[in-house]
Amino acid sequence: MTAEIFPKVKTIDLRKKHIGPSCKVFFSHDPIKIVRAKGQYMYDENGVRYLDCINNVAHVGHSHPMVVKAGAEQMELLNTNSRFLHDNLVQYAQRLQATLPEKLSVCYFVNSGSEANDLALRLAWEYTGHKDVITLDNAYHGHVSSLINISPYKFHQLANAEQSKSVHVALSPDLYRGNYRQDHPDPATAYADDVNNLIQKAHEKGHKVAAFIAESLQSCGGQVIPPAGYFQKVAQHVHRAGGLFIADEVQVGFGRVGTHFWAFQLQGEDFVPDIVTMGKPIGNGHPMSCVVTTREVAEAFKNSGMEYFNTFGGNPVSCAIGLAVLDVIEKEDLQGNALRVGGYLTRLLEQQKEKHPLVGDIRGRGLFVGAELVRDRVKLTPATAEAQDIIYKLKEQHILLSADGPHRNVLKFKPPMCFSEEDADMVVEKIDQILTGTLNAPLSLSFTMRIFLHFFTDIEKALGLQMPSTVHTKNGTPSPQSLWHSHI
Amino acid sequence: MTAEIFPKVKTIDLRKKHIGPSCKVFFSHDPIKIVRAKGQYMYDENGVRYLDCINNVAHVGHSHPMVVKAGAEQMELLNTNSRFLHDNLVQYAQRLQATLPEKLSVCYFVNSGSEANDLALRLAWEYTGHKDVITLDNAYHGHVSSLINISPYKFHQLANAEQSKSVHVALSPDLYRGNYRQDHPDPATAYADDVNNLIQKAHEKGHKVAAFIAESLQSCGGQVIPPAGYFQKVAQHVHRAGGLFIADEVQVGFGRVGTHFWAFQLQGEDFVPDIVTMGKPIGNGHPMSCVVTTREVAEAFKNSGMEYFNTFGGNPVSCAIGLAVLDVIEKEDLQGNALRVGGYLTRLLEQQKEKHPLVGDIRGRGLFVGAELVRDRVKLTPATAEAQDIIYKLKEQHILLSADGPHRNVLKFKPPMCFSEEDADMVVEKIDQILTGTLNAPLSLSFTMRIFLHFFTDIEKALGLQMPSTVHTKNGTPSPQSLWHSHI
Repeated sequence: MTAEIFPKVKTIDLRKKHIGPSCKVFFSHDPIKIVRAKGQYMYDENGVRYLDCINNVAHVGHSHPMVVKAGAEQMELLNTNSRFLHDNLVQYAQRLQATLPEKLSVCYFVNSGSEANDLALRLAWEYTGHKDVITLDNAYHGHVSSLINISPYKFHQLANAEQSKSVHVALSPDLYRGNYRQDHPDPATAYADDVNNLIQKAHEKGHKVAAFIAESLQSCGGQVIPPAGYFQKVAQHVHRAGGLFIADEVQVGFGRVGTHFWAFQLQGEDFVPDIVTMGKPIGNGHPMSCVVTTREVAEAFKNSGMEYFNTFGGNPVSCAIGLAVLDVIEKEDLQGNALRVGGYLTRLLEQQKEKHPLVGDIRGRGLFVGAELVRDRVKLTPATAEAQDIIYKLKEQHILLSADGPHRNVLKFKPPMCFSEEDADMVVEKIDQILTGTLNAPLSLSFTMRIFLHFFTDIEKALGLQMPSTVHTKNGTPSPQSLWHSHI
Repeated sequence: MTAEIFPKVKTIDLRKKHIGPSCKVFFSHDPIKIVRAKGQYMYDENGVRYLDCINNVAHVGHSHPMVVKAGAEQMELLNTNSRFLHDNLVQYAQRLQATLPEKLSVCYFVNSGSEANDLALRLAWEYTGHKDVITLDNAYHGHVSSLINISPYKFHQLANAEQSKSVHVALSPDLYRGNYRQDHPDPATAYADDVNNLIQKAHEKGHKVAAFIAESLQSCGGQVIPPAGYFQKVAQHVHRAGGLFIADEVQVGFGRVGTHFWAFQLQGEDFVPDIVTMGKPIGNGHPMSCVVTTREVAEAFKNSGMEYFNTFGGNPVSCAIGLAVLDVIEKEDLQGNALRVGGYLTRLLEQQKEKHPLVGDIRGRGLFVGAELVRDRVKLTPATAEAQDIIYKLKEQHILLSADGPHRNVLKFKPPMCFSEEDADMVVEKIDQILTGTLNAPLSLSFTMRIFLHFFTDIEKALGLQMPSTVHTKNGTPSPQSLWHSHI
């Protein structure tokens, strides 16, 4: 297998010619060609090493030998559909189930987070006989048409967006920028009440709610950590309306949050969703995913009379790979590593917040961390261009990071779980240098980028940012700066 | 890698406990546990070899070493998303494009036939600004919610099925059992006119048609071969209404039809769909698929302003596997083999039709062949139970075949493309023995099955079937028996 077939310029040319123009590359002005990767490092065609701070798919580390071996050996033996019995399928289901609350016992294996979330909706529709779905603002749940409908992150991008009448958008439970913030006496109840209001409004129109769906921690939505207790209260409202609670763990599951294997468990042991969907990290890059639900929901779905068959879902190769991923997480204590290194990274970023007024908020759990950049800590003006600038400058330093959230001003850390304290030191040191303006642009920088940097070389000086000691709250009352939501 | 972990009874038990009950196994009263497979053969936990006549996913043969090698080597190097440049992606797109008419030049790589068809709908909706979709009766296009809506094969299974108002079901262009049959002077025009009528009716209601979607040959719908020229005429009507033509090649593409690489090409060189979707065979079992469309459609989709990102779609491992599949098809001349062996199989089945009145129709192209069983060649009464009986008896002979179509009375051949004339001999000989009642039930047969067989041991005698020389036509006029649609 040759790692590079075409010179880069030819690769770009062929891509323009044959790949849908809606499919974007990172750093489109000067995209990166990656030919191999190992652990938390990716290598370009010239052997240049990049530190990967963003790839939550390569969960146990890029090209992990145990995962590769499991996949290769099973491919050699058999790869067929789940209409035949196979031990990998049932063993994997059993192993997954053991990580979940007991009542979440029935699995459906599919190929992507999108397929998983679409199936979750089908389960909810069938079980409840209702149609409406409540989703969070800024949510992203996948690319198939049913999920674009429930993904404000996507449908807000459309010029002619027409929100489905059976979709209701609830407030994102964002304690930094949302309607109810850290100064609110009970944001969990306040945000849950918003969901309840939507349910009531739907009822007034004669609609009925099939499901509430939320990522256990919002990822594209801006690394949002909902207040503990919020899911329990929402579940109460939704259950009362006859609907189901779907926890989307596609981005955040499999030990990433450090203290727990699933991010919904951060809400407390008394919370159990009706449906959990999984994806990205589940196969370390292999296309696979899973929906887990209760026996009750599964039986109702069966009783519709419609068989569910997924050609590739649950094939022995996917299951062998899934099992190997679980083995590696356990063997290498990657959940523990996420807790330790995530904590370390968060503390380093907190120091940046103390030092640089541009850093408005640090929040995270384990190796799922967000740093929200603002031009003004009182008005919370999103520092979008500055976030982009940091991302571009880090790229020149061979560090891959991204910015997301509705304002694209949240630096988003979700690295492979083998990320180390040295890696954390490196990325935060570079961010520090960028923010203090001591990082010189390397010679390879494109002309456009230089012009851009000319205006932003020292971002904070250029913007005349000051360091306030208080943070603005929704109702206008400044409250003491709180670090609570960066605790891991 | 241990091929068997649990005894079979434990596998069944765990499956009941942890796998969605809507996910059926083959031969549920006595399911098969397969532990390895090679070429067109699958092996159970006791080493018993089964001849696989149904698995169009294991396209170039189960566990093909070239495919396994390509996948394993690439997994070892890199498996990441398409936001980085990679040569496998563009090389594969280029290679796929070379098999298609020139204007079909833009690819989107996704993970399953369902994701592909859903994206095809999104492309059509965005390009046309219209909403309605015309689909064929008995069609199956996938399991995500948008596709259940356009799959009568599925939504007819629901007790409380409610057909979407924006979906219109056209007549299946079935020349054996459909509204217009082989005696009709111009069935292509007649069936296309039905589509046009639906368009007009939609217009009368103020609706606009975004797309017509059809499998190039209907598979689950009963191995239906549309008359040549039908697609051209449909495309004319649909284009006039501002809609697009989507050819679903998920089941039938990649050389299976023998004479051509794509089944839509059977309609003639003057026919080019606007969108082609691929799936099952594309990765020989690896979860991957593709949508190919025109530059025009792709640019309109881009201009919606919404990025398209598919986490696993087009990753270097999937593309390496896809490339290897194309290589093997070429190197082993599997398209040629499909033509030769498919022709041979069809001729053998024709002989069965001459011999056994239960065999009402043989139709196929290459290694995509259907044998429709009827109790009465004039009334075309579907021989559903008899088809099931054959399938079960073949299983006892270690041959895997399935029955499909709206009446589940069409024996469906779509084996791995390395299927041989000896394999064809074996399966047809066994079918012959079953139909003549000379096949003794093996001792391993379950009690229930024996009771069942007691009533059907000699199916034809039991049913008192006669051998008519004419076939019933729609308008009641018997016409000379025609073999035309079994030509390959």
